[in-house]
Amino acid sequence: MSGACGITFRAPHHHCPTSQNPNSTTPKIPVFPLPINTNKRFHPLCSSASSQTQKTENKNPLVVVGSANADIYVEIERLPKEGETVAAKRGQTLAGGKGANQAACAGMLDYHPTYFIGQVGEDAHGRLVTDALAQGGICLEHVKRVEGEPTGHAVVMLLGSDGQNSIIIVGGANTSGWPDPLPEEDLWVVRNAGVLLLQREIPDAVNIQVAKAANSAHVPVILDAGGMEGPIPRELLKAVDIFSPNETELARLTGMPTDTSEQIAEGISKCHEMGVKQVLLKLGAKGSALFTEGEERPIIQPIIATSKVVDTTGAGDTFTAAFAVALVEGKSNKECLKFAAAAASLCVQVKGAIPSMPNRKAVLELLQSL
Amino acid sequence: MSGACGITFRAPHHHCPTSQNPNSTTPKIPVFPLPINTNKRFHPLCSSASSQTQKTENKNPLVVVGSANADIYVEIERLPKEGETVAAKRGQTLAGGKGANQAACAGMLDYHPTYFIGQVGEDAHGRLVTDALAQGGICLEHVKRVEGEPTGHAVVMLLGSDGQNSIIIVGGANTSGWPDPLPEEDLWVVRNAGVLLLQREIPDAVNIQVAKAANSAHVPVILDAGGMEGPIPRELLKAVDIFSPNETELARLTGMPTDTSEQIAEGISKCHEMGVKQVLLKLGAKGSALFTEGEERPIIQPIIATSKVVDTTGAGDTFTAAFAVALVEGKSNKECLKFAAAAASLCVQVKGAIPSMPNRKAVLELLQSL
Repeated sequence: MSGACGITFRAPHHHCPTSQNPNSTTPKIPVFPLPINTNKRFHPLCSSASSQTQKTENKNPLVVVGSANADIYVEIERLPKEGETVAAKRGQTLAGGKGANQAACAGMLDYHPTYFIGQVGEDAHGRLVTDALAQGGICLEHVKRVEGEPTGHAVVMLLGSDGQNSIIIVGGANTSGWPDPLPEEDLWVVRNAGVLLLQREIPDAVNIQVAKAANSAHVPVILDAGGMEGPIPRELLKAVDIFSPNETELARLTGMPTDTSEQIAEGISKCHEMGVKQVLLKLGAKGSALFTEGEERPIIQPIIATSKVVDTTGAGDTFTAAFAVALVEGKSNKECLKFAAAAASLCVQVKGAIPSMPNRKAVLELLQSL
Repeated sequence: MSGACGITFRAPHHHCPTSQNPNSTTPKIPVFPLPINTNKRFHPLCSSASSQTQKTENKNPLVVVGSANADIYVEIERLPKEGETVAAKRGQTLAGGKGANQAACAGMLDYHPTYFIGQVGEDAHGRLVTDALAQGGICLEHVKRVEGEPTGHAVVMLLGSDGQNSIIIVGGANTSGWPDPLPEEDLWVVRNAGVLLLQREIPDAVNIQVAKAANSAHVPVILDAGGMEGPIPRELLKAVDIFSPNETELARLTGMPTDTSEQIAEGISKCHEMGVKQVLLKLGAKGSALFTEGEERPIIQPIIATSKVVDTTGAGDTFTAAFAVALVEGKSNKECLKFAAAAASLCVQVKGAIPSMPNRKAVLELLQSL
């Protein structure tokens, strides 16, 4: 019997197939329920009590391993001084974190099953993120609730005066309490993925473990360079198939400027030397480019222009996640880039991260209109 | 049939009696279920579907009208500058707000039924507060979920360097979206209370309405002066039976210093002139005193000393709520003061606000040990 995704909210009824035998290396599509540590894991999406026969979608799962965050936005005129209390004009707390954002985006683009593997605290912020993901039909059986750690959160102080933001980050369950090694059932899901999508807001050691598990099963690994600013371990880069930085992140990794296309080309060469086969470079308003080792020229994708840029929050996450969706669907590199550009173009027209992520219909309509 | 308080968490099974007829002025103890606006209200505690006969406790309800907050604590070395991102050492988000704190305290002191009337947003922070109150057996049928407003919250930045805090407050549903006038069912609960407990974190207009409703039914009204720093409307003070400031709040209200006992006596006289019959003055480490109009001397209560002062957060809320509990139980003024002092003494020995509130057994044991 397959695990069933049915949800109490307004969620679609997708299928989160799991397997009875975590040691089995085939089939790629997990079909039977995994043995679950009910003490530590919870299943907001998948009703294990359901006795009805579930249809299992014949698609390789998209698996995101990464961060889950509560983003606490407060709009203030100015920062408080020490010992001072100031009133905010407005406040809003939204589900976020680059991992959760990218999983939510894949769900919005109607790719199912999409699994999110991550950690939250046993708190209200954890429920905020899992509720948001559950509403997008994301499979959450492999989300762990960490005792004694808060869900990761960020206080984003939007300063009225000059549009600058000041941010306080609490790593919480994103950075602490990861089991080492990861449970076999998590690695099994990774090995049975169609694509593995990573970012840099959880410990490198976790990313390395899942990337290596993916490698062992020939599952393509995409690493979004966004997140922590520290150096990226060689061991991780070697296990990555597609590395996706923006210009700043590329410069930071290579220690070289990225002001001219020659400098960018040099930076890309250095990435290849570090063991990365493909580099998916995000260039903001200048579009994107996919560089493949051994190929002379990159595939270049300009942005799909819109007259209405409201908020670029989440645009990078949308781009990478949409690329991953197109990739696991078997599209060509060129098509993947175009699909991602269309999704990002729609994202910047709406405020917020997860709330701004477009659905597949909107992306396809935009692509058809070009 | 009475509404039944049964709860899915570890909550005790208390009774939140309500009435079928909001226009009835008797009896004092509401016995029948009120008509409920199911669209706007929710009932985490009280199962209306229960068909079993419920025992109605023969006690006048303690009713708290006030604020519900999520207090987001982040421990940082220093405040971020504009445009800067800093990592916190730790973070924790707790249920708070002076209204919710005082209701939770009454619940901890095992006074049931205790009603909380307040507003939260339709968000995770709202669930945080209502879950905390539900776990304390507080009746929540009169908590309103306000659409389009966040639950009130405060970002409390604990600065490692010098123990100073900087705070950002978002009023949210505490300050916006209150119906005017308040629904008759809310006022009915107030008129049928044994005591009404108020603070200053919701609009004065709401406090004035409920205080007047209480007056009309001879329900004693306690106003804790804590909360907003603005002037207190005369109309509110006139409707208050017991006004409870600390020294700073007394000085602010009267515009007079409170450094000597003569100055304090003058300030108290001014309160009586403003229409307040009794003043319950909180003097921190110096204890407390209850001043009654027309009586020459106050009743003085020293603190119940403890060698272990860990955190005074919530001590004022605990003191006022414990005093209200003792009052509604018919204790003498002297006994009320002593009960409140014992509760506050236990509160300062534990970190946090709601987590530090003592249960009745601990308070009685402390009182017996004196």
